[in-house]
Amino acid sequence: MQRGFAQAEFENRTRRAQKMMETAGLDALLLTTEADVRYFTGYLTRFWESPSRPWFLVVPNEGKPIAVIPSIGAALMGQTWIDDIRTWRAPDLADDGVSLLTDTLNAFANIGTPMGYESHLRMPLADWARVQAGLRPSVSDDAGIVARLRSVKSDIEIAKIEHACTIAGRAFARVPEIAAKGVPLSRVFRNFQRLCLEEGADWVPYLAGGAAQGGYGDVISPASDAALAQGDVLMLDTGLVWDGYFCDFDRNFSLGAPTPQTEAAYARLIDAVDAAADIARVGTTAAQLFHAMDSIVTGGAGGSEAGRLGHGLGMQLTEGLSLVPDDQTVLEEGMVITLEPGISVEGGKILVHEEDIVITGGAPRFLSPRAGREMVQV
Amino acid sequence: MQRGFAQAEFENRTRRAQKMMETAGLDALLLTTEADVRYFTGYLTRFWESPSRPWFLVVPNEGKPIAVIPSIGAALMGQTWIDDIRTWRAPDLADDGVSLLTDTLNAFANIGTPMGYESHLRMPLADWARVQAGLRPSVSDDAGIVARLRSVKSDIEIAKIEHACTIAGRAFARVPEIAAKGVPLSRVFRNFQRLCLEEGADWVPYLAGGAAQGGYGDVISPASDAALAQGDVLMLDTGLVWDGYFCDFDRNFSLGAPTPQTEAAYARLIDAVDAAADIARVGTTAAQLFHAMDSIVTGGAGGSEAGRLGHGLGMQLTEGLSLVPDDQTVLEEGMVITLEPGISVEGGKILVHEEDIVITGGAPRFLSPRAGREMVQV
Repeated sequence: MQRGFAQAEFENRTRRAQKMMETAGLDALLLTTEADVRYFTGYLTRFWESPSRPWFLVVPNEGKPIAVIPSIGAALMGQTWIDDIRTWRAPDLADDGVSLLTDTLNAFANIGTPMGYESHLRMPLADWARVQAGLRPSVSDDAGIVARLRSVKSDIEIAKIEHACTIAGRAFARVPEIAAKGVPLSRVFRNFQRLCLEEGADWVPYLAGGAAQGGYGDVISPASDAALAQGDVLMLDTGLVWDGYFCDFDRNFSLGAPTPQTEAAYARLIDAVDAAADIARVGTTAAQLFHAMDSIVTGGAGGSEAGRLGHGLGMQLTEGLSLVPDDQTVLEEGMVITLEPGISVEGGKILVHEEDIVITGGAPRFLSPRAGREMVQV
Repeated sequence: MQRGFAQAEFENRTRRAQKMMETAGLDALLLTTEADVRYFTGYLTRFWESPSRPWFLVVPNEGKPIAVIPSIGAALMGQTWIDDIRTWRAPDLADDGVSLLTDTLNAFANIGTPMGYESHLRMPLADWARVQAGLRPSVSDDAGIVARLRSVKSDIEIAKIEHACTIAGRAFARVPEIAAKGVPLSRVFRNFQRLCLEEGADWVPYLAGGAAQGGYGDVISPASDAALAQGDVLMLDTGLVWDGYFCDFDRNFSLGAPTPQTEAAYARLIDAVDAAADIARVGTTAAQLFHAMDSIVTGGAGGSEAGRLGHGLGMQLTEGLSLVPDDQTVLEEGMVITLEPGISVEGGKILVHEEDIVITGGAPRFLSPRAGREMVQV
């Protein structure tokens, strides 16, 4: 697998954005988050983990994007296709990019910035107020342009996500090496991340899961030091990254033979994924995928406290559409989504299964190595 | 090491916040970011990796904080000391917590939210506008209350940071196992993260570094597949986490014997750390620490493109003060900071060294296992 992208990929992304900007009456986009900046530049660094410095990208209605960034990032940004790199020595407690960004934006008349679902403005509100006070152009929502663009993946993006899925699949196949009766869940978590790295992950931004008798309490808790016990279902859900692209799927393991109830509940999760995959075609809506699974896992109750039964993924662990009753997003070729049904089991517990698929011209292709109908025993 | 905190820790944090709120004329704080929410609740999950759901905490001027969160987090939040947990089934595309948050905030008159340095509002701007439209109270800056509170660590927080440092120190001691001539830097990165996990890290949110002849180009790039060569200086800079607290320091390694120039430059970095540590006392300013190091690494030029020579750390990789000429923050007992001098070397390259210290009643205590004056050879 080749890292990075040919320059044509960024040119295409920018050109498509510019076409949508024209329709929306915008002559520049202001971007502030890691994924949005990387989408148009290829600027890949884990340095965003530090909240101390804001980073800005301005996508004009013609030509290449303009980077307005801390000088510490100039060398790395200089390796991308971006030519116009404007820097200040951050952190500057008196003017942390405010005047440089304001000057850059004042060359335009109508600016859009992501304001909708899943977005946030990654800069201090006080500095944003100062920028706005010095701006001649108006600032409005980006009309969903960036989210729409990012939701449909190119073949190369899909290949990177699939590569991440393959790595995770190999790590999941090795779980019997690290999980057994008596092993603390926290050690399983630590060792599973090690397996992901050994199998080729660049890093492992996300790991959640649980283990308890016949199911688990939720899917977002960190690991406790409790030891795995006979009859536990162990679930590991990972979002590992390869070259800036995520996989996001889970696997369930039974400590010893599962009970008939556990077997039946798990099989219904697989049935739910099958039902969604059967209709996951261009033109189907996110809501239809939700109902296909919900009818199997709740009998059509309309959902659960988890809130959704899948979502888009790509440069972020979750991005784009949500499999909920209200999401009428129509599937397009190149969308990558997770199918993530959950089911209630005895004792207020749940089981959750997740696979990653890509929408194609025909049946969806599974990017995660599809799990069988029987839970793997360890 | 015990995980978590006694409830008294959260009571103290809340009480101190409430005292500062009284002085500032605020009767509630609105918090939206992972670290700020966790600081007052102990709510620890990697689920924040997903941008899909906003999370809110309201700290009133008396009593416990109020959580306004997606229902998927209710079970885990229910394990903290928080009693008042208000949930909605997120994502809700029509009302993603907007009315629940608005109703909660309308019980107050003057609300503060972090708007200053290093802060951001982690929710869509469009939803924030809807909240504001429905609010009776005014919303202003939190007067720096949360940042000030978080900048001074309790003994238990310091112990957690020190534990993270100890884990990283053991991983760095094992670098000779994984670094040698001919090994691609990307494999070193992958294996170093594995070592961090083996030595006890919960996870490894941050790893950067570089390797090239006599120095490296920057300290924020991801790893290339270039093989290590004789004469390279390999630098690894990690922020690993234990129980939600970071370490952040680096180590330099020489592939074979370093040149006299490299030796001399590296020794000056150690001298710079020593000079800063010599004056890192209660009452010293961040600016004074900067100048103590800058006079050694640049001869007093006033800084470099990296922007600073150290920073606070704790629940985030970087937080609080910056070692820059303009930061007049006065050191207090319990502040944990990094000393991170960098020096220019031949060919436009740099060397950077970093240690973590805590400010005490006397001389600072090194939390990272202090490096010697001679670079370790591999």
